[in-house]
Amino acid sequence: MRNLKVFIAYNGAAYHGFQRQDNAITVQEVVEKAIGKLLKTAPPTIYGCSRTDTGVHARRFCFNVHIDGKIPCEGFIKGMNTLLPDDIAVISCEDVSDDFHARYDTKAKEYVYLINNKPSRDVFLQNLAYHYPYKLDIEKMNEAAKLFIGEHDFAGFCRAEGKARVKSTVRTIYNLGATLKDGVCEIRIRGNGFLYNMVRIVAGTLIYVSEDKRTLEDVRNAIETGARDFAGVTLPPDGLYLNEVFYDEILGT
Amino acid sequence: MRNLKVFIAYNGAAYHGFQRQDNAITVQEVVEKAIGKLLKTAPPTIYGCSRTDTGVHARRFCFNVHIDGKIPCEGFIKGMNTLLPDDIAVISCEDVSDDFHARYDTKAKEYVYLINNKPSRDVFLQNLAYHYPYKLDIEKMNEAAKLFIGEHDFAGFCRAEGKARVKSTVRTIYNLGATLKDGVCEIRIRGNGFLYNMVRIVAGTLIYVSEDKRTLEDVRNAIETGARDFAGVTLPPDGLYLNEVFYDEILGT
Repeated sequence: MRNLKVFIAYNGAAYHGFQRQDNAITVQEVVEKAIGKLLKTAPPTIYGCSRTDTGVHARRFCFNVHIDGKIPCEGFIKGMNTLLPDDIAVISCEDVSDDFHARYDTKAKEYVYLINNKPSRDVFLQNLAYHYPYKLDIEKMNEAAKLFIGEHDFAGFCRAEGKARVKSTVRTIYNLGATLKDGVCEIRIRGNGFLYNMVRIVAGTLIYVSEDKRTLEDVRNAIETGARDFAGVTLPPDGLYLNEVFYDEILGT
Repeated sequence: MRNLKVFIAYNGAAYHGFQRQDNAITVQEVVEKAIGKLLKTAPPTIYGCSRTDTGVHARRFCFNVHIDGKIPCEGFIKGMNTLLPDDIAVISCEDVSDDFHARYDTKAKEYVYLINNKPSRDVFLQNLAYHYPYKLDIEKMNEAAKLFIGEHDFAGFCRAEGKARVKSTVRTIYNLGATLKDGVCEIRIRGNGFLYNMVRIVAGTLIYVSEDKRTLEDVRNAIETGARDFAGVTLPPDGLYLNEVFYDEILGT
């Protein structure tokens, strides 16, 4: 059996996240069915690098899948892009060793949170950004962002029901910063792993800092004590993108 | 009566163009109904700066409308943005003199044509760009672009049934150029007016030049003789944006 490492992009607006669910359409189900159709087999199980929530997007999402047959990788990409709907695209495909697992082998991930910071809604960013029309203090947001860098217990930045899913809430953040360009604010965060809703809470905390609803001291407290109340609001899923997945040790540092 | 000069943006994917039609949903109809609802009157007629075709977008589109009542312009913007669907947004509104007409007073317009030039489709540019996955020779496209600058008879760059609509097919192009950034090619053209499908044919001609399907001599011939055959293909509407409308003499030059 072959083991394919596949990168896809998807616009999550129409999906209940990546992970297969009963009674709701997900990216995983659509991709698995397309592979089955392409290879004229039953839909195989694909192993995604991550769960993503309803409405969350991915610029680069990795999965692996075990398949039989001799279809060349180029043929896999072209065939899949013909079979998949317009909001999912296969970017790359390669044969990898049997033991590669898209989720367990992840070394680091990068997320981007997009905020439309223009006064009016952006008709070209429907479902693709959070609309926040007030002035953002990017400098202050970046001061707060620095506090996240390093290894910390991010229990204060995790949705309650997410804690039971993980053994530890300690994660390492390599980079976090906010930029503003052409009326769009981009918050970019890279780390060795993320808790449930963590990026959306971190982004909401930076906005609360910009609004003086939270001080740098509050953010420090949230990181040190794990108390959710010191952090900010959870921003909506529309603005969230899984931007990159790294399987190479060096890239995360 | 007041005369309001209003700028809107719209994602044209769901509309049969701007101009009102029987049996098809258009931007004009949706905006007129929203104004009627906001002012609690019958939908008034709005005068658009331009027609746009089915699926064509506008980053800045101007219309004027005669209304009664004392609603402040800020209130008009906010109220309209509440009533309009997500794919149409009011950007600005101001009271202007009675004789301003959004169409007849136009001094220049700028269009942008977006081409997704990446190998895979872009799931975030669905209906928002034309997908052309082959290498583009931007330098050669810009050499051809220079030939369009100035006052010419653009009969060769007009869809046949469009010619009957206009007294003259002579137009002045102020700027035309192509750039490539992050896998997206942007063709930008500014002129004192445009013929039916002209921008889509100009963009298609630049692509034909890049592909060596047309020479610079062909383009020169198309401009000099008005023969459509020397020009290139008409690109699809998805990539076309009305980018700006100018009412000030100096901006067009």
